Amino acid sequence: MIPTHIDTWQMTRPGELLRTQIPMPELRPGDAVVKISGCGVCHTDLSYFYLGVPTIQEPPLSLGHEISGIVIGGEPSMIGKEVVVPAVIPCGECELCSSGRSNRCLSQQMPGYSMGIYGGFSSHIVVPAKFLCPADNRGDIPLSHLCAVADAVTTPYQAALRARLQPGDLAIVIGATGGIGSFMTQVAKAMGCRAVIAIGRNEEKLAKIRKYGADFTINLSGLSPRDVKDQLRQFCNDNGLCSTHGWKIFEATGTKDGQDLALSLLSYTGTLVVLGYGTDKTTYMLSRLMAFDAEIIGTWGCPPEKYPEVLEMCIDGRVSLEPFVEERPMSEIAQVFEQAHRGDLRRRVILTPDF
Amino acid sequence: MIPTHIDTWQMTRPGELLRTQIPMPELRPGDAVVKISGCGVCHTDLSYFYLGVPTIQEPPLSLGHEISGIVIGGEPSMIGKEVVVPAVIPCGECELCSSGRSNRCLSQQMPGYSMGIYGGFSSHIVVPAKFLCPADNRGDIPLSHLCAVADAVTTPYQAALRARLQPGDLAIVIGATGGIGSFMTQVAKAMGCRAVIAIGRNEEKLAKIRKYGADFTINLSGLSPRDVKDQLRQFCNDNGLCSTHGWKIFEATGTKDGQDLALSLLSYTGTLVVLGYGTDKTTYMLSRLMAFDAEIIGTWGCPPEKYPEVLEMCIDGRVSLEPFVEERPMSEIAQVFEQAHRGDLRRRVILTPDF
Repeated sequence: MIPTHIDTWQMTRPGELLRTQIPMPELRPGDAVVKISGCGVCHTDLSYFYLGVPTIQEPPLSLGHEISGIVIGGEPSMIGKEVVVPAVIPCGECELCSSGRSNRCLSQQMPGYSMGIYGGFSSHIVVPAKFLCPADNRGDIPLSHLCAVADAVTTPYQAALRARLQPGDLAIVIGATGGIGSFMTQVAKAMGCRAVIAIGRNEEKLAKIRKYGADFTINLSGLSPRDVKDQLRQFCNDNGLCSTHGWKIFEATGTKDGQDLALSLLSYTGTLVVLGYGTDKTTYMLSRLMAFDAEIIGTWGCPPEKYPEVLEMCIDGRVSLEPFVEERPMSEIAQVFEQAHRGDLRRRVILTPDF
Repeated sequence: MIPTHIDTWQMTRPGELLRTQIPMPELRPGDAVVKISGCGVCHTDLSYFYLGVPTIQEPPLSLGHEISGIVIGGEPSMIGKEVVVPAVIPCGECELCSSGRSNRCLSQQMPGYSMGIYGGFSSHIVVPAKFLCPADNRGDIPLSHLCAVADAVTTPYQAALRARLQPGDLAIVIGATGGIGSFMTQVAKAMGCRAVIAIGRNEEKLAKIRKYGADFTINLSGLSPRDVKDQLRQFCNDNGLCSTHGWKIFEATGTKDGQDLALSLLSYTGTLVVLGYGTDKTTYMLSRLMAFDAEIIGTWGCPPEKYPEVLEMCIDGRVSLEPFVEERPMSEIAQVFEQAHRGDLRRRVILTPDF
């Protein structure tokens, strides 16, 4: 039965959370009511909450865009299905949607950002049924964990596709110890990279990522960009890999330091993919791209039609979710936001509704 | 008969030209001796001569990399053929060469830059025969004019391929009044762009480019980047073109102003191709690329195997050479360099040997 209200944790204004109830929206044809199993806490949520990055829907609104759950109402063919809700929901009808760029549909809606007041830190959410990704055959992976597919794993997958990642490639992940970066590392390896090099600052997390996709790690602490490049070249030379060209670099931190390092590593026929958000500016000589025949690609979300491929990677074990996520009851949202903001979390937190 | 010496204009050091003779190099199997018909004066030559940009082969060397001529010796199957000499000559054997990136082969040689002391401002040059582009069926186009294919037309063609330019696209050329930019405009139109917008500062040259590929021109004088964007949007709205996304921007000036403008025009699913060389740096928020799902592509030269397609465009009239080039005797090289450096030339100058 569809409840008349949705329980939610609302951002009444940046920095302020309120447990409240909001009306269940009126269902349009094709809508599905999803009872939320889990909603991941993403760096983007923290940007809205702490850093003044504006949401399209002005507060009050519920944050949260990384959602999994069970369809309990609306579109009859979907009722009872376990699903992942895409973080970016396109219109499905415009020229961008019909040309494979639905992830950047200009009419797109994102829960917890631009889908009215509705977001994932709630008991339920109403979304268009046709973009939902059914999570059949999930085996013993908790449905709540699969919410990470909605952003943390699909965004790296789309980044890899945009970089035209091929079996045999050398991939370098900057910020490989973070939420997006750790899945970027796993996805790059799952796609057949000959070597994936994970760069970060936390030795414990680097040790962990070596078990999940990274062939080599570099701890940035105390190193200059030149030192990093030297270590990379040495690794390539020691392992019969190309040290001169074709590196595919994934920048997942969104920080100026990370971006400066990425730009300094970019060389002949290289590709730099920007998938970490930050508001800093960088300074660069664009003609270097010309001399290098290199490129810089920004990537946003992932088209919903690609979600099943990513889910498959998680279900068949090419990408491990469990070691990188941690469940907490949604009532701890304020505490979790604080810990995440301070950088005190070791895993991506998934909040499970406990209203 | 192969002469024992090559007549040439040598850059003895930056800023200094000397008419002299250099030995004809010993021919290796597969080499061809080309009697030069014309060699274009490129912005790059001026960078070496006036701006201290270093050549790989330290002076003394002959500059000039935009060469056409007739094979008079060496590889027997080529003797008597009229040819264009690729500006960038790959090794043909490395991994980059075999994966379609021969334009960025790391063992590449460029006449007038890295091919020993040899360059195009000379009577003859010796090059590997297998990369030469035969100019059969050139009709009434002078062979000397076809030297422009070696860089000024092939570089824009490769830029268009790198941008995945499609029929129906909207292309914007910044610096459309310059040597590379005017051919970029023509090539974009020849490849079926729905509209090509040419941006420059010289009204007379803008009027000319409207006859050769540009559907609309914008004179930058007195305009801010925002004004330019407004004019572009207005043009799109007036002509039923998409004003919100997918613009393909070609930056051909290599200047900071041109690059800043290009970056400010880059928007949703946009592509910026950098094909103008300059040493200035720009400052940009890389996360904008992420939010826009946009990309910046640097492009270098053109693989020799693509030259025939470009030559065909010039021969069948899709790209007009004649209105954009001007022949001058090679003995006027110093004067031409000066005029080009001051920006006093209206057309790309092709120097014809008159030793």
